[in-house]
Amino acid sequence: MSNALKLFELAGADAAVRFSPYCWRARLALAHKGLPVETIPWRFTEKEAIAVSGQGKVPVLIDGERCVYDSWAIAEYLEAAYPDRPSLFGSPEARALARFVNCWTREAIHPALGRIIAPGLPAILAEKDRAYFVSSREARFGVSLAALAERRDESLAALRRALAPLRGALADQPYLAGAAPNYADHIVFGAFQWARVASPVEILAADDSAIAAWRERMLDAYGGLARRAPRAV
Amino acid sequence: MSNALKLFELAGADAAVRFSPYCWRARLALAHKGLPVETIPWRFTEKEAIAVSGQGKVPVLIDGERCVYDSWAIAEYLEAAYPDRPSLFGSPEARALARFVNCWTREAIHPALGRIIAPGLPAILAEKDRAYFVSSREARFGVSLAALAERRDESLAALRRALAPLRGALADQPYLAGAAPNYADHIVFGAFQWARVASPVEILAADDSAIAAWRERMLDAYGGLARRAPRAV
Repeated sequence: MSNALKLFELAGADAAVRFSPYCWRARLALAHKGLPVETIPWRFTEKEAIAVSGQGKVPVLIDGERCVYDSWAIAEYLEAAYPDRPSLFGSPEARALARFVNCWTREAIHPALGRIIAPGLPAILAEKDRAYFVSSREARFGVSLAALAERRDESLAALRRALAPLRGALADQPYLAGAAPNYADHIVFGAFQWARVASPVEILAADDSAIAAWRERMLDAYGGLARRAPRAV
Repeated sequence: MSNALKLFELAGADAAVRFSPYCWRARLALAHKGLPVETIPWRFTEKEAIAVSGQGKVPVLIDGERCVYDSWAIAEYLEAAYPDRPSLFGSPEARALARFVNCWTREAIHPALGRIIAPGLPAILAEKDRAYFVSSREARFGVSLAALAERRDESLAALRRALAPLRGALADQPYLAGAAPNYADHIVFGAFQWARVASPVEILAADDSAIAAWRERMLDAYGGLARRAPRAV
């Protein structure tokens, strides 16, 4: 059954460049479960390719007859469908707290990080995706990408402040989930991998050692899956 | 052994008023474990009463020959010393994620909430505590308590924004820890109980229904322990 796993992943003009933080969560979750997957590059404007999912965003996971979209739903699906593989959460309590981490990442980290990454993204996107990306992001942020680029230092400072809870937790333990990484780490690391693949900006200050060390461990995890990923920059 | 448990708790001029968020974590953790405790009112300036702990802050837990301070250390102590009682965390992964919740509450919630609560606190403190409180908090916030009071609406808006991750998680589950409360809930609820006991300000907007419903559940938990607590206001 696992030979049938396919994952639609957001890609750049270079199909090897996979930069979506949500798709990275799914990739890491699949690796955590030890499930081989065929990844399929997908662009923002290729709605018809994932029409079977009934919506228009990736990641979309195809597992035989099953089609699952939304990164959290994919994690829950994998946990339920492959219970004999290593757990993505560890316990019901940890799964509930991973949901909090999910909300924190969505509310406090992605908006701050998006302001830093978005101005550089059109340059790495397939040409057909650029107009959609620029208009949707300028609507989301309420300013032009050019204006965001001018505020980069301010956005970096805001992101680094927003990372304080992660910094605190990683001062006392190697992974967010404790002694080993699990889906809570995948959620947050997806944001760092987004930055790594799509942006030349170093988002951490030089002295942010606890987070930097964790990022290195996550790059090495699962046989170096994230470290080997081609970067656009 | 549990008959010997004593907890030094921060108190107001009225000794029945216990408003420290960190002491509330310890009280709820003890209740979660089903451990009876004798609480001892303590004021900021009564350093000699807890000198046995080797430091100057509460909560301080006395368990027979053992003395433990710091709310996180108390939770870890109780979990280790009373393994046959209901777990405060549920699993090693959930304990690691509770540490993240601890850091988030410390970095994102307490500073925002403190700006709202602090101006009203001198009025409820024992007279001998007031000068210490005012000078230490004005140093921490970098402004006078009077200036903080003037910025209350702005601080409330900032707090409500900072609560977004909690709001998101509680939209999908009754407690932060899932189906039942655990120490992760105690950590965050301690902040709400601090506000409830010490301040007349309603910190939630009228439409913040997911958080408000969770707060009600936490007030009812453990036989209504938090709801029964005397309020200063």
